[in-house]
Amino acid sequence: MAAYQLYAFWRSSATYRVRVALALKGLTAEERIIDLDAGDQRGEEFLKINPLGAIPALIVPGQAPLTQSLAILEYLDEIVPDPRLLPADPLGRARVRSIAAGLAADTHPLVVPRVRQYLTTTGGFDLADWRVWQTQWFTVGLQALEARLAAEAGTGAYCHGESVTIADILLTSVVAVMRVFKISVADIPTIDRIVALCETHEAFARAAPFKQPGAPAA
Amino acid sequence: MAAYQLYAFWRSSATYRVRVALALKGLTAEERIIDLDAGDQRGEEFLKINPLGAIPALIVPGQAPLTQSLAILEYLDEIVPDPRLLPADPLGRARVRSIAAGLAADTHPLVVPRVRQYLTTTGGFDLADWRVWQTQWFTVGLQALEARLAAEAGTGAYCHGESVTIADILLTSVVAVMRVFKISVADIPTIDRIVALCETHEAFARAAPFKQPGAPAA
Repeated sequence: MAAYQLYAFWRSSATYRVRVALALKGLTAEERIIDLDAGDQRGEEFLKINPLGAIPALIVPGQAPLTQSLAILEYLDEIVPDPRLLPADPLGRARVRSIAAGLAADTHPLVVPRVRQYLTTTGGFDLADWRVWQTQWFTVGLQALEARLAAEAGTGAYCHGESVTIADILLTSVVAVMRVFKISVADIPTIDRIVALCETHEAFARAAPFKQPGAPAA
Repeated sequence: MAAYQLYAFWRSSATYRVRVALALKGLTAEERIIDLDAGDQRGEEFLKINPLGAIPALIVPGQAPLTQSLAILEYLDEIVPDPRLLPADPLGRARVRSIAAGLAADTHPLVVPRVRQYLTTTGGFDLADWRVWQTQWFTVGLQALEARLAAEAGTGAYCHGESVTIADILLTSVVAVMRVFKISVADIPTIDRIVALCETHEAFARAAPFKQPGAPAA
């Protein structure tokens, strides 16, 4: 198997997603730490890997770096089809990708370090304002997802049916980073149930932020 | 062919993407206008379609609504494979999905109406602050993409190779909404060249915001 490298940080929600997918597929990667608190992601060296200055980046030997967690998850699902992380039918795939994108595109990008940096300098936010902002977008994103999961026939033991998909990986990745920031959202019983089930899998349990190198004590 | 319905708004960047993909695939959809300025997206009726309160939503008769533009584009590419909007090889597909996600996830969600509403009320931004914020994220996103497109061997006449992919649809959708807001980004010659080429296709030209029902004079 190729010797992958993964540019990573202990609490990064998007890195968590790739850790889980690699483990589910039986793949391993050597992690190279990009310290988001020290600004490594904006350093000249890393900007050559990803000009957007965001982790994760997966290095497949001999290839250009792979970036963006959802693109990496789709890639891993294509090169190692078992266990599959997307349903077989196009409508099911669309539902899973929609749930994943609702978190990856409409929730998480609002609470990342570069947005915090802007709002707490140029934007005039103090840390209490930032916390209200963080809480707002986690709440909006998860309550909207809860409404879908509770209403839609596609929901099963997992977000979609009876096996882990990319939607579950995204959901647990968002909950994982909320825990790091000690933010909780009330009245999301379907989400709570699905996350608890996912975390019975070793691939999820071992990807937890506080178990990674460089993490502080929980 | 099924009678699709598309929940849409004239200037919506994410709606534009679906308009282009439908046209490239030879499909049509009846548009149902969700007036983002009037807050229709937060109305009780539309929240049943998408609890996140975001357009587009594509209605396939007899099915749950399809939401999230990237999920819809992947769906359309699966059910109507010709012309294909993703490359055949997994690394190429990963590159195209990464370019698309860099815009759909890390650029556009920062400048949507619900973020404007928060920042100009709770956040204390005036309209000049909002404009600086908008300009900041369009600039960061497009300059990072320009760096990739200029450096990577995969770039061709289009973002990836010699035919239109999902990456081009995302790129033109972001440029289209920048024009609506009269925001421009300097020194992106590769992007300017690719957008100009895309706009020679009727599918792109006809999806332009100012050509849609409900649009003001340009």
